[in-house]
Amino acid sequence: MFTRKRIVIALGGNALGDTLPEQMAAVKITAQALCDLIEDGHQVVVVHGNGPQVGMINNAMSALSREDSSQPNTPLSVCVAMSQAYIGYDLQNALREELRNRGFVRTPVVTVVTQVRVEEKDPAFQNPSKPIGRFLTKEEADRQATAYGHIMKEDAGRGYRRVVASPKPVEIVELDAISSLVDAGKIVITCGGGGIPVTMQENHLKGASAVIDKDFASCLLAKDLDADMLIILTAVEKVAINFGKENEKWLDEMTVEEAQKYVNEGQFAPGSMLPKVQAAMDFADSKPGRTAMITLLEKAKDGIMGKTGTRIHS
Amino acid sequence: MFTRKRIVIALGGNALGDTLPEQMAAVKITAQALCDLIEDGHQVVVVHGNGPQVGMINNAMSALSREDSSQPNTPLSVCVAMSQAYIGYDLQNALREELRNRGFVRTPVVTVVTQVRVEEKDPAFQNPSKPIGRFLTKEEADRQATAYGHIMKEDAGRGYRRVVASPKPVEIVELDAISSLVDAGKIVITCGGGGIPVTMQENHLKGASAVIDKDFASCLLAKDLDADMLIILTAVEKVAINFGKENEKWLDEMTVEEAQKYVNEGQFAPGSMLPKVQAAMDFADSKPGRTAMITLLEKAKDGIMGKTGTRIHS
Repeated sequence: MFTRKRIVIALGGNALGDTLPEQMAAVKITAQALCDLIEDGHQVVVVHGNGPQVGMINNAMSALSREDSSQPNTPLSVCVAMSQAYIGYDLQNALREELRNRGFVRTPVVTVVTQVRVEEKDPAFQNPSKPIGRFLTKEEADRQATAYGHIMKEDAGRGYRRVVASPKPVEIVELDAISSLVDAGKIVITCGGGGIPVTMQENHLKGASAVIDKDFASCLLAKDLDADMLIILTAVEKVAINFGKENEKWLDEMTVEEAQKYVNEGQFAPGSMLPKVQAAMDFADSKPGRTAMITLLEKAKDGIMGKTGTRIHS
Repeated sequence: MFTRKRIVIALGGNALGDTLPEQMAAVKITAQALCDLIEDGHQVVVVHGNGPQVGMINNAMSALSREDSSQPNTPLSVCVAMSQAYIGYDLQNALREELRNRGFVRTPVVTVVTQVRVEEKDPAFQNPSKPIGRFLTKEEADRQATAYGHIMKEDAGRGYRRVVASPKPVEIVELDAISSLVDAGKIVITCGGGGIPVTMQENHLKGASAVIDKDFASCLLAKDLDADMLIILTAVEKVAINFGKENEKWLDEMTVEEAQKYVNEGQFAPGSMLPKVQAAMDFADSKPGRTAMITLLEKAKDGIMGKTGTRIHS
């Protein structure tokens, strides 16, 4: 039997392009795939990454500081906030347009500036691992490290990127407002870039120099909104074990136990497929009936119908 | 008899400071004044300007383009979007903290990325008049005009600033979502910087190279939300006629007719007090019982109680 589901969808920041023209093209394709789900009657909540974008904005603010001595350096948390509007504006616009093209003239789309609380004592602050900014050559990376004191790392054979702390999300500060909007039938874009990272100091929320993993933030949001499904979109249609080896196997489904076994075997790349699988496991394990899926953007609709993707369930 | 009112408050972008440290100090003072109204039981919706901030962000994005040839120049509409999160994040945080300090632990504050539609044929596009960016010396202004081709103008004796088109707002695109949030009792920050200016091209909304006057946007929002009151905050406690002259007179109130007479006499400075008075007149004239007020941030509470400020009514 077909059921209308509440679905949290996590989009990769890399899939949104490195520049504004690339982003404007990418959000159109994204909007088509998301509208396919909305057209099927599903309630969709959108979370996006911001790796390339927050790095770009951080570089822009640094460039300004060098040119205009009255402007001090801008904290990473503020750059994350700016990236939520930089991406949200384009994405909400593309979604609105695609919905209208399909006759949904009264389905509002809205971007909420979202803070996500992390723990000050999270060990991630001692071990920066989250890549941001565009991919650089070795020479560009060395130059950036020298100029800004950034920590640069090689990223999965695709070039060099700056890495920053990626603490675990523990609370979505604006959850109540997000929940109201979702319940009222709006399409909500929230927790952009994993959310603006903040730590709690009594009643004050202090911006943290970090970028939260959007897959973990999506998982927390999906649990908090009591979603039926968490879909984590990535660059492959299915999750593989023994990736690139003779006995490579693309998986249709995994139980949380099976997934844990593969994680223990080191089957998934840290900073790439590993956090996606971990977020999927966390959601699937959080309540009976909750399912997570990892697949390509273009395959999300087929995935929900059980035709493709890797499904993680309890 | 005391009545709880729905109030739209327009805050000046200049009052938020030129730099992030200045903004973080300014939002604390702003939050105190706004919480005074919330504590009195009023329903508050916040609109803020972004003159200095959007100019700063635009300069940052231009500086990036010069340093990184892969990044094309960023349209002003995208810079307005970024300024909504740059300011909204700080403001929502300061409001949340002040509310909690006063025991309102369950009053959520939320910033909505807001697009506002303007007409492509608005004559303002032919006559840029809205100052953005920080105040510059003549030398700095000349340099910026040469470097970026910006139009620079002297601003009310306070220095030189870039001017851009300021078309009239005709529709708040995300009104439905804003309205849901306000009705649900959330404190909403919206139409930041007057809203992201967009023009309609069939189902597509195209970013416009403009900054909408936040006083006019606030007026439209106040009408659309059926607010009781529009409060426009500025650098003076009351509106004056014959300003700086022997017969200078500070006004406690004006009818729309009186205000129109003063406007016709050229009593109010264009780009400064004039748009505030015009927005106030438009709101006061739109429906019986609607009142607008122009006053200082610190006097907003006294103003509502009829102790100060300039009240504009039909």
